[in-house]
Amino acid sequence: MIKLAVDAMGGDYAPQSVVEGVKLARNSRDDIEFLLFGDEKQIKPLLKDEKNIKIIHADEVITMEDEPVRAVKRKKNSSLVLAAKAVKDGKADALVSIGNTGALLVASLLIIGRIKGIDRPGFTATMPVMNNDKGFTMVDAGANADAKVTNIEQYALLGKYYSELVGHVNNPRIGLINNGTEADKGDMIHRKMHDALQSMNANGEINFIGNIESRELLNGVADVVVTDGFTGNAVLKAIEGTAMSGLGLLKESIKNGGFKAKLGAFLMKDSLKKMAKKMDYKRYGGAVLLGIKDPVVKGHGNSDAKTVKNCLFNAAEIVKSGYVESAKNHFTKVAETK
Amino acid sequence: MIKLAVDAMGGDYAPQSVVEGVKLARNSRDDIEFLLFGDEKQIKPLLKDEKNIKIIHADEVITMEDEPVRAVKRKKNSSLVLAAKAVKDGKADALVSIGNTGALLVASLLIIGRIKGIDRPGFTATMPVMNNDKGFTMVDAGANADAKVTNIEQYALLGKYYSELVGHVNNPRIGLINNGTEADKGDMIHRKMHDALQSMNANGEINFIGNIESRELLNGVADVVVTDGFTGNAVLKAIEGTAMSGLGLLKESIKNGGFKAKLGAFLMKDSLKKMAKKMDYKRYGGAVLLGIKDPVVKGHGNSDAKTVKNCLFNAAEIVKSGYVESAKNHFTKVAETK
Repeated sequence: MIKLAVDAMGGDYAPQSVVEGVKLARNSRDDIEFLLFGDEKQIKPLLKDEKNIKIIHADEVITMEDEPVRAVKRKKNSSLVLAAKAVKDGKADALVSIGNTGALLVASLLIIGRIKGIDRPGFTATMPVMNNDKGFTMVDAGANADAKVTNIEQYALLGKYYSELVGHVNNPRIGLINNGTEADKGDMIHRKMHDALQSMNANGEINFIGNIESRELLNGVADVVVTDGFTGNAVLKAIEGTAMSGLGLLKESIKNGGFKAKLGAFLMKDSLKKMAKKMDYKRYGGAVLLGIKDPVVKGHGNSDAKTVKNCLFNAAEIVKSGYVESAKNHFTKVAETK
Repeated sequence: MIKLAVDAMGGDYAPQSVVEGVKLARNSRDDIEFLLFGDEKQIKPLLKDEKNIKIIHADEVITMEDEPVRAVKRKKNSSLVLAAKAVKDGKADALVSIGNTGALLVASLLIIGRIKGIDRPGFTATMPVMNNDKGFTMVDAGANADAKVTNIEQYALLGKYYSELVGHVNNPRIGLINNGTEADKGDMIHRKMHDALQSMNANGEINFIGNIESRELLNGVADVVVTDGFTGNAVLKAIEGTAMSGLGLLKESIKNGGFKAKLGAFLMKDSLKKMAKKMDYKRYGGAVLLGIKDPVVKGHGNSDAKTVKNCLFNAAEIVKSGYVESAKNHFTKVAETK
């Protein structure tokens, strides 16, 4: 039985969307036990059937407005802190939240702790790719805006194990986002990052394919895309905004296009739906915080039940995959040879 | 008469696409004289009618593979260097090229020169916005990857004058790309950039609306978007790649969608065309190098004749607008009060 510690009080529609997501997940699988941390009075009425679900009451809630470090240190009985402690104490295998991102990061760092050898954890983002169903995984999607060269080296390794074990990609192609594909492109720090990854490639540690441009991401140019958290965040939001704008533009064109366009859209409905589905990042199971001793999954604050379900399934897959163990082994070996 | 110095030998299909673009432009306007720099033997056969077009022969060509600084210093008789000299000497009002970007940057810096008070020039990019036809202007789109805080202050001012005089935007809203809208967001350098722009706002120098996220760019959240050249480049390429992928996905869905989808697409043709047109960055007249003493416009290397025409018209608009004079005046005044 996989045990997931779920912060039921995070997100814009808490606890409803979280509880509904847990119910969806529970109804379609039997191999997960859900530990739901939050206000029992609010959660219980939402559950008719508590099969494989255990409510652990939490007095306090960390809100989106709370300052992360202070909140985690002071709100000892918050749903997030108690959920993180359950993971730390081995009572659960992974942590899932759609609440305050900064607080989740701090709780993961201070309570669950980093893998030995990792300086700063990084968030993944998994995005669709046009010509296959695997998509690509970006690290760091925004946990660490001021990334140093050593952070990028660690993200490349964490991303490699994640892609191999969770994404089932053989010898994943790792690329660095830069403002040109040539080896000498970029600002000072990205040139250094390129050279460091190049050396790791020469050592056989990773399969580094060199610099990649953000224009090529959705064409599947790499399986793992490493980048500093500032650039990663900006690129992901640009992709998201453009996809949303494109769909909006299409809808508007149809609306203002008269009868012919409306009939056309009706006939094209299945094609358009297929496209919208591919563009829908919600399908992709949230962001995973890599570099922590146990799997931590963060969903969007505005996640609906279906997205919460995807996050929960993703967390379960990560637990089953053995990614954390592989990453730990790697960094332990590295530490021993030094 | 506006005089444009045109590098006829730049770009993937030189000189054909450049000469065709010049012809298109010349055939629809009478107020521009085109000085075409390049190989007379290749250019002349492409021109039946030389009205308002003057060919100035150039022996040499700077290719896409040439190292910019060396090429500009050594290839004294190249089409680019001679065109830049014509601008420097007052024989032309603006420089237009679709060739080697680095070489254009170097030729602009070394031959035409910076506006006094500007440390590093920045490229604009003009992108469409969903709910209006003006779009937004980004500075810097990639001329200066290692931007300092002073560079960003200068981009904000250059962008302001450009948006006011060329884009006809009244009191343009200036935003800084950051990984969150709150004032304390970002890595170290972007937090400092935010604070510097905030001070300029307090002084009444610019209308700074604060941090903006790349997700909101196409929604028209700002008229001028300032950013370091590394982030600007990554964000623009992400937008471009996503738009292209979206259109590709739509085409593919239709192709694989059978008769119904094809009929639907036929009926929706006008709507789809309208969308594709809005997404087509080629309409938007190239990138302008801000901070140089005269207007410099750079088109994509793969520009077709229509895009070259748009670049030429854009250069003519900038000359007419008086943007350069306004920027020069501002920085002269600033220098005098120091």
